[in-house]
Amino acid sequence: MTQTFLDVPPELGPIQMMLGEGLLRVEQRFDEQLASELLPVERLCAHVERYRGKMLRPALVMLSGLACGASGISEEHVTIAAVCEMVHMATLVHDDVLDEAENRRRGRTVNHLYGNEAAVILGDYLIAGAYHLCTSIGSVEAARAIGEVSMTLCGGELLQLHYRDDYSLDEATYFAILERKTAALIGVSCRLGAQLAGAAPAVQEALDRFGRRLGVAFQIQDDLLDLLGEERVVGKSVGKDLEKGKLTLPVLLHLGHLDPGERGSFLELLERAGEGDAAAAGELRDRLVSSGAVEAARARARTLVEEAREGLRAAPRGPAREMLDLMARAVVERRY
Amino acid sequence: MTQTFLDVPPELGPIQMMLGEGLLRVEQRFDEQLASELLPVERLCAHVERYRGKMLRPALVMLSGLACGASGISEEHVTIAAVCEMVHMATLVHDDVLDEAENRRRGRTVNHLYGNEAAVILGDYLIAGAYHLCTSIGSVEAARAIGEVSMTLCGGELLQLHYRDDYSLDEATYFAILERKTAALIGVSCRLGAQLAGAAPAVQEALDRFGRRLGVAFQIQDDLLDLLGEERVVGKSVGKDLEKGKLTLPVLLHLGHLDPGERGSFLELLERAGEGDAAAAGELRDRLVSSGAVEAARARARTLVEEAREGLRAAPRGPAREMLDLMARAVVERRY
Repeated sequence: MTQTFLDVPPELGPIQMMLGEGLLRVEQRFDEQLASELLPVERLCAHVERYRGKMLRPALVMLSGLACGASGISEEHVTIAAVCEMVHMATLVHDDVLDEAENRRRGRTVNHLYGNEAAVILGDYLIAGAYHLCTSIGSVEAARAIGEVSMTLCGGELLQLHYRDDYSLDEATYFAILERKTAALIGVSCRLGAQLAGAAPAVQEALDRFGRRLGVAFQIQDDLLDLLGEERVVGKSVGKDLEKGKLTLPVLLHLGHLDPGERGSFLELLERAGEGDAAAAGELRDRLVSSGAVEAARARARTLVEEAREGLRAAPRGPAREMLDLMARAVVERRY
Repeated sequence: MTQTFLDVPPELGPIQMMLGEGLLRVEQRFDEQLASELLPVERLCAHVERYRGKMLRPALVMLSGLACGASGISEEHVTIAAVCEMVHMATLVHDDVLDEAENRRRGRTVNHLYGNEAAVILGDYLIAGAYHLCTSIGSVEAARAIGEVSMTLCGGELLQLHYRDDYSLDEATYFAILERKTAALIGVSCRLGAQLAGAAPAVQEALDRFGRRLGVAFQIQDDLLDLLGEERVVGKSVGKDLEKGKLTLPVLLHLGHLDPGERGSFLELLERAGEGDAAAAGELRDRLVSSGAVEAARARARTLVEEAREGLRAAPRGPAREMLDLMARAVVERRY
């Protein structure tokens, strides 16, 4: 749950409790929607639970609603929160398929075949469940937003795939990928939360922007944790971006300051680190830190968070807005 | 296009022409919906065209509308026709991923990795495009039906995957898979076509049933063509069901009449045929023909078509209904 990375001051206790109760309702709605009389479906859906993470998107749907004047967490907010999480889960499940394939390419675990096939269909089931659930609140506008953001998301995935192992990726394209793959859905989560609370279009737009900025900052922090974090703190394997040939912001910023000769030798180092050479990975990290690239990426994330927080001012002052503000700050402070 | 397997009598010429024009509009709507400013997306979508087949679902949406009193093919019918085809295409693209994986298991073409990953995302993009397009007609009911049928479809896929290479599959489960994986979407295509033309609920239901029966018959015929058809006539590789360990209706009907001892030796033959033993495949075919299992499967398909045609009587008599009737008969007569 979102609270796990938040250090919440006492005055926000009541809203935190309200959010916690809301998240439980979201989990329930989520599970009910995926329930099936088919045993193989039931069994697979049970696995989805292990994907359940910070529940960032559901929290944002509900807090955005509360920040825009909703007196409590409505059924519609719970539904749309579950929808946003389901869309997110679908991408995680399909990302796993892509990553498992990658693992196979590096010659690791061999017969993930049955697993991959089931995962493709499970992801499809999640996305179908999301759309179906979405129509239950009777808002064509919400359904349209979810359909649209899903297309955007896939566009981001395809763009990312296109640039995998391609060192010509530039900063603009890096951000274009993040905007689509991560930020858009987080933005829509905030926007729909506001919309369902009857917020004015300008406020919905401001919250959408808040979410998008937050989403980009969140992803940059993810990149940094993957590069520098320790496995036991982050809670998942680190250094995966290097292995996957994914260029992250610190690497891009560093590359931007090299002359052609330095660039060649740095790319070679990157290649070696990607092939699992631990010494090369260590040297790479050292260079990114000493050149200031890591710090520059951190600064970028902090600026985005500040921009996000400014957008929040469109919503009326109150504990829900405070909570959103706290979450925004936590994004760049989190260690996991 | 659907017409390619139809021998249309002269009096249906006008409706056939109307349908042909409608299908062109569907193709256009389809392409417009998937258009993207991202080059990698554009490039992949261009590939989708090669999946374009008989356009059965779009034809059924439009003909069901016309059969229920629509004076022409409305924009809404074109949209929903494109939506149904997009959902279908998404499943084809993801099926291909599953099949390519299978090919790898048999040790064929090796590095389809990039292709597989792109195909997973492309399928997601198609399904997202379908949902997004669906909301453009402003009908929550239609969006809900499409979301629901997509879940059903995935359930069928998972059930099928669960029983792959599992010879305990029985006839009831075989039909449960077909109903979900193939028939449900064809039924919804007919139902939505009728609904958008303002048909009464009972007529919508009758057309849904027509579509479902037709869908099951269509799939049985597909099974038979895969088992017995000649590659140059069918236009795609045959014998794939055996290779994939997919039990088809003739095999199931045959198995149902064997005593335990015969069953063992027949399963062995099936296994050998599945491993690419051409002599075993030939013997298998001969046994299925001589035991009457093939004929029994054909009879099953014919009965389903007759049931489908009876359901059609709920719609008023006219050339569109005639055309649907003709299509139903063609399903069990087609050789490709």
